[in-house]
Amino acid sequence: MKTIELKAPYLIFIGDETIDGFAKTGFGIVEWRRSLCKGQMNVEGGTVDLGLPPMTIKEATEANVKSLIIGTAAIGGGIPDIWIDTLVEALLKGIDIVAGVHTRLKEIPRLREAAEQSGARLVDVRNPPEQIPVGNGKKRTGRRLLTVGTDCSSGKKYTALALEKDMKGRGMNVDFRASGQTGIMIAGKGIPIDSVVADFISGAAELLSPDNNPGHWDIIEGQGSIFHPGYGAVSMGLLVGSQPDAFVVCHEANRKHMMGWDNFPLPTIRELIERTIQIGKLTNKEIRCVGVSVNTAQLTPEERKKYLDNLSQKIGLPCVDSLKNGTKKIIDYLEIAFNIK
Amino acid sequence: MKTIELKAPYLIFIGDETIDGFAKTGFGIVEWRRSLCKGQMNVEGGTVDLGLPPMTIKEATEANVKSLIIGTAAIGGGIPDIWIDTLVEALLKGIDIVAGVHTRLKEIPRLREAAEQSGARLVDVRNPPEQIPVGNGKKRTGRRLLTVGTDCSSGKKYTALALEKDMKGRGMNVDFRASGQTGIMIAGKGIPIDSVVADFISGAAELLSPDNNPGHWDIIEGQGSIFHPGYGAVSMGLLVGSQPDAFVVCHEANRKHMMGWDNFPLPTIRELIERTIQIGKLTNKEIRCVGVSVNTAQLTPEERKKYLDNLSQKIGLPCVDSLKNGTKKIIDYLEIAFNIK
Repeated sequence: MKTIELKAPYLIFIGDETIDGFAKTGFGIVEWRRSLCKGQMNVEGGTVDLGLPPMTIKEATEANVKSLIIGTAAIGGGIPDIWIDTLVEALLKGIDIVAGVHTRLKEIPRLREAAEQSGARLVDVRNPPEQIPVGNGKKRTGRRLLTVGTDCSSGKKYTALALEKDMKGRGMNVDFRASGQTGIMIAGKGIPIDSVVADFISGAAELLSPDNNPGHWDIIEGQGSIFHPGYGAVSMGLLVGSQPDAFVVCHEANRKHMMGWDNFPLPTIRELIERTIQIGKLTNKEIRCVGVSVNTAQLTPEERKKYLDNLSQKIGLPCVDSLKNGTKKIIDYLEIAFNIK
Repeated sequence: MKTIELKAPYLIFIGDETIDGFAKTGFGIVEWRRSLCKGQMNVEGGTVDLGLPPMTIKEATEANVKSLIIGTAAIGGGIPDIWIDTLVEALLKGIDIVAGVHTRLKEIPRLREAAEQSGARLVDVRNPPEQIPVGNGKKRTGRRLLTVGTDCSSGKKYTALALEKDMKGRGMNVDFRASGQTGIMIAGKGIPIDSVVADFISGAAELLSPDNNPGHWDIIEGQGSIFHPGYGAVSMGLLVGSQPDAFVVCHEANRKHMMGWDNFPLPTIRELIERTIQIGKLTNKEIRCVGVSVNTAQLTPEERKKYLDNLSQKIGLPCVDSLKNGTKKIIDYLEIAFNIK
């Protein structure tokens, strides 16, 4: 399959990071793919603790680690000089380096040379695979669910991962499909859809959720919002190429405007559902919304319950906060809507 | 401005081409920008005649030609070996080479070396400029008209150029804005919007029609169709970034399905108008359709008149075949709709 693919198990590298918030990628991998993580590694000055066993490159090699994943975003998005010795040591042991930082790994001469010497890979999860085709719009086998948002950063990745986990918990045949760099590091594969050349957005989305068994569900990580003035085209191409049977709307309670685009009010959830169905019908006539996941971190428990109950009554669909309540109600609804079991 | 920019005047190079249909770019430049063309040049075996004075590189240099534009698409999309000597000669005289062929000009060592030696440029109109920003959605000054299509190859470039010409003919302050490679060769500048990285589609569209005088109109060349399963995201990003005040629908009479996507019926013109307004409202609340341009090459003159009259009555807007009737009716309507004069 023409997607990025990482080799497990992993050593999560958090460098000299001292602030948990900048190590979100590392925490995400541990949260969702703990079984693939052998250990964590800081360099001098680093204090972030992901809760994994600390490990040197030598110990990682003995533990058969295949990839060192850079799980932190340094200020400026580069690779600090004080990381290089460690990364070179890993490469020379045949361990891939995986990163989503702004600087291309291949542009750092010492890393490039070490990789060439050992045959280990420099995997930049911001680089889409080559030779992505134009989308053909043909119906694929298997089922698909896409998370869509009223804005960026509204819980689309989290909700998709929570759905995957909870559906697996019910014994369903399901795969999370990552369309962004952190998602790719968590899933171990995927395509950074926002970095694909414009003509190939829906084609990339088609590669992301290929033909599968009739009872299988792909849970596809959405990007941006079809109502976003900057990123809307990415969201639309992902929607059309994903040809989802079902979608879940993701929203942050009380957010009124697009983050960073203050002149753009958020669409209502009703508007987003209608527009998603209109556009999604191009490649899947049966597309339907199966629920809403709201980030209610800003609300008290009482406010949360009231907010979700009101919303659910208004739109006639299950509304949850995936982080606080899990996705049970949405999956219950999905099972009925699609005659599952 | 961060767009590709060509230097005029031009020598149009048609190589060893013998079939007019493969020299559409050359004919297009001559049709729409005759005053910028000093001459044409074939190499041995070539028979296509654009109607320009034949010229050698020496003569072109004396005529102060600044760019040699490759006006033909060779089978396979490359640069045939028998063209190279001529192209090197031009480069060494300081003449830029401009092409939209599949092979990157810079990847041909002799061309690269000659360009480095003289300082002439290798301009590949398929390569978008660097450092395109994310779209900000902010309202820009001046007016904009976008051509949109029910499909690819439905007359969007032709109609935009015809509108530019006819509006100029009325003394209006107007510029054609090219979003595709042939359009860029004709306009002498532009951005190949389908080659931009996904995240920056609407940002590129914003660069394409920057702030302008209140009475000025940009006539923006559309791409694809928002209903297209492969290219729809490009069309959507171009629509949102262009924030058009007006749009003209382009359609080929009697085409029933997307060309090459036989499972996808064309939208009706009514559906396309409604969806374009829905999406376009994100960045311009006042967006409106001002007419339809239909390619009626397949119809007899009687059928054409009947088709256009029926369509016009049905949708309540001027409907023309830009090639056969010009765009007069559309501009008349535009002037009334926008209180021009």
